[in-house]
Amino acid sequence: MSERLVVIGGDAAGMTAATQARRGRDDLEIVVLEKGPWTSYSACGIPYLVSGDVDRVEDLVVRTPQEFRDKHRIDARVRHEVTAVDLDARRVEVRALEQGRTFLLGFDQLLIATGARPLQPDLPGIDQPWVRGVQTLADGAHLLELAGRPRCRDVVVVGGGYIGLEMAEAFVQRGCRVTLVEGGEQPMRTLDRDMARLVTDALRKHGVTVQLGTRVESFDQGGGVQTSAGRLPADLAVLGLGVVPNGELAASAGIELGAKDAIAVDHRQRTSASGVYAAGDCAEVFHLVSRKRAHIALGTIANKAGRVAGINIAGGYASFPGVVGTAITRVCSTEVARTGLSEGEAAEAGIEYVVGRAESTTRAGYFPDTAPIVVKVLAEVGTGRLIGGQIVGADRGGKRIDTLATAITAGMTVHQVYDLDLAYAPAVSPLWDPVQVAARRAMTALG
Amino acid sequence: MSERLVVIGGDAAGMTAATQARRGRDDLEIVVLEKGPWTSYSACGIPYLVSGDVDRVEDLVVRTPQEFRDKHRIDARVRHEVTAVDLDARRVEVRALEQGRTFLLGFDQLLIATGARPLQPDLPGIDQPWVRGVQTLADGAHLLELAGRPRCRDVVVVGGGYIGLEMAEAFVQRGCRVTLVEGGEQPMRTLDRDMARLVTDALRKHGVTVQLGTRVESFDQGGGVQTSAGRLPADLAVLGLGVVPNGELAASAGIELGAKDAIAVDHRQRTSASGVYAAGDCAEVFHLVSRKRAHIALGTIANKAGRVAGINIAGGYASFPGVVGTAITRVCSTEVARTGLSEGEAAEAGIEYVVGRAESTTRAGYFPDTAPIVVKVLAEVGTGRLIGGQIVGADRGGKRIDTLATAITAGMTVHQVYDLDLAYAPAVSPLWDPVQVAARRAMTALG
Repeated sequence: MSERLVVIGGDAAGMTAATQARRGRDDLEIVVLEKGPWTSYSACGIPYLVSGDVDRVEDLVVRTPQEFRDKHRIDARVRHEVTAVDLDARRVEVRALEQGRTFLLGFDQLLIATGARPLQPDLPGIDQPWVRGVQTLADGAHLLELAGRPRCRDVVVVGGGYIGLEMAEAFVQRGCRVTLVEGGEQPMRTLDRDMARLVTDALRKHGVTVQLGTRVESFDQGGGVQTSAGRLPADLAVLGLGVVPNGELAASAGIELGAKDAIAVDHRQRTSASGVYAAGDCAEVFHLVSRKRAHIALGTIANKAGRVAGINIAGGYASFPGVVGTAITRVCSTEVARTGLSEGEAAEAGIEYVVGRAESTTRAGYFPDTAPIVVKVLAEVGTGRLIGGQIVGADRGGKRIDTLATAITAGMTVHQVYDLDLAYAPAVSPLWDPVQVAARRAMTALG
Repeated sequence: MSERLVVIGGDAAGMTAATQARRGRDDLEIVVLEKGPWTSYSACGIPYLVSGDVDRVEDLVVRTPQEFRDKHRIDARVRHEVTAVDLDARRVEVRALEQGRTFLLGFDQLLIATGARPLQPDLPGIDQPWVRGVQTLADGAHLLELAGRPRCRDVVVVGGGYIGLEMAEAFVQRGCRVTLVEGGEQPMRTLDRDMARLVTDALRKHGVTVQLGTRVESFDQGGGVQTSAGRLPADLAVLGLGVVPNGELAASAGIELGAKDAIAVDHRQRTSASGVYAAGDCAEVFHLVSRKRAHIALGTIANKAGRVAGINIAGGYASFPGVVGTAITRVCSTEVARTGLSEGEAAEAGIEYVVGRAESTTRAGYFPDTAPIVVKVLAEVGTGRLIGGQIVGADRGGKRIDTLATAITAGMTVHQVYDLDLAYAPAVSPLWDPVQVAARRAMTALG
């Protein structure tokens, strides 16, 4: 009898691991159990489905279960929910949701890729259908259906993180009146206050009403949101309060949890249980700058971790070096990006730092389509090491964060960043790239 | 009497060095002698002056002599040509072009920043006013004047390098019929053949007639270009055959020349003569990948080298680590970028390599404005070290070369590039950035 790999969860991490395991071992039996109706899709694309930039839900599906079966001999079963893991008996309990029956399935190796779910605080009325988080394609389809109704005019977005920003943009683009309610004093808590202010400005410029320091208290029956600053009309409310890892299944099987209750994994994506791996939004990840394990739910990480898990499952050797906390989003024409540590995170990690901040342009100053860009970098006092970067800018300026992410990964100092041989032509950059100007300012601050 | 620094050449390297020297030493007397009528201008902006993207010649001037005098107490004299350097007597012979007189000026320290000039082969008729290279603002003003004439319809661009491409674009944008004549089998010799083919395609798509493998033989009286493939109508011809360093003044003073007859300098921009520095397009530069001295005429290098020279002149300590050969240009919406070594350069350097090539998109595949991008990387066999990268792509894709330039500078392997934590959101990138896809292909090729 052949050895069997069971994968719980059929999105980025799960399917990447499954195909990678197949590549490494032709003889392995691979069964993927996915609770929802889709495999391998781009949840990050949901805001663009709602905005109308993307036409159909199906456009966000990278590969169907049938394709996995045909091309990779992976038995991908949708609408199959794993309800328990028995490590001693080495089997999972599966609920076939369509058929309404439960069965047991044995495994030799197990990958847990159960993802994360939108944080849903215990507020009165939050369970109504017009209040919705954004995580799965089903959420996307549901939001699209609600947004398409003629009476959907007022939209309240709860939370000013990546998803909140992107959903605010999407509904403005649909012609809705959008209010973004954020409990803290700024949107984008992964940015510093000064950079977040630029994001608030961009949101307002785009027609989003931004209410900071405002707590949501309850959702009225059928519409309307009660907040600490009064009632807001709402035909639809989107929750963008962040996500929590789906670690419960693993925990109840006795598998160790780690950072933010994500599943604890080592550099090879192994959990505390022998032969059991975890990857993606349900698992923790090593942060190369803070040198600590963290929980960051991102498709890029899920893909990388899934690949590493798959290679190891197939008997190969792969390790995931970790992340530097890079993330990017777009609010209309303004791109917002960050990498490494923010000021708050640096302070928390006990790192003394200086700041370099450049207000520059994306192209040569005299060039017609040039646009403003602000780049901020953090450098460690004593070593000069680059430890963080943030960018807010239009005209495709955000991807410049990759230069900083690469430099941080390489352990470069801001002096080395300043010396980098970056690409210049008037149509694409000022002579000194804004990231180098920021590095220069940090050098001056370091003395 | 105070010590005097004389700077020969008032563009990027010269003026950067002068201001940096002033910052370091308040007591220094600083005299800059510039042959032309402008200081500190963006020669790279000339094509956009011709295209009409930039309104006036003055828009390309970063700072005027008066500003240098007022803000930095730098005695910047335009229309002053240095005709000889006497190292023993420590003085230069200066021709005041307006006044028509010659005088001697003593120096304690000297910076040679004489720049480069367009290569002008010895062909019949090349000295006519309608045949022009592009280097100084005077060239720009002259081209603008010619292009503004009603009979300027047919333009021949000689040479398919950066300037040739940008000038071809500029004249197409003005509504001229443009033929680009290139002696070699491809435009952009700093790219590999397969990538250059994409550039040829982009040029043709934009309406430029591209004639490869065609030699220019002579220029007819008053218009028309004779080539190895017949006569081309021409009201205006632009020379884009590359540049040669202006090293003659230094050489005749007995200062050592280096790569491609550029002035030999060390890591602190010191020449072979004591107290004499050189920087910018007239000087050589250290190439961090080939580990050899090279001549690369670029504004970014001139600025960096000028800064290093200025700090050292003022008694500080600065060194210029070198370049990795990064360059970028734009042909209409298509950006063309390169860094490190091309296949030809790697072979010449005796480095055995593999290629990774990715045909991807600039944003998520399902995203509306996504555009094609091709990324090619070279990795060293045995070490896996990234040694080169080339990008041809639309939609602002070219600046992704900075990620590769940073990785090359850091000595990263393609495996490390693949593991980088780069920024992803559907609006700005595919989940796997094209540079990572190319790195992955190289990993596969390495085995």
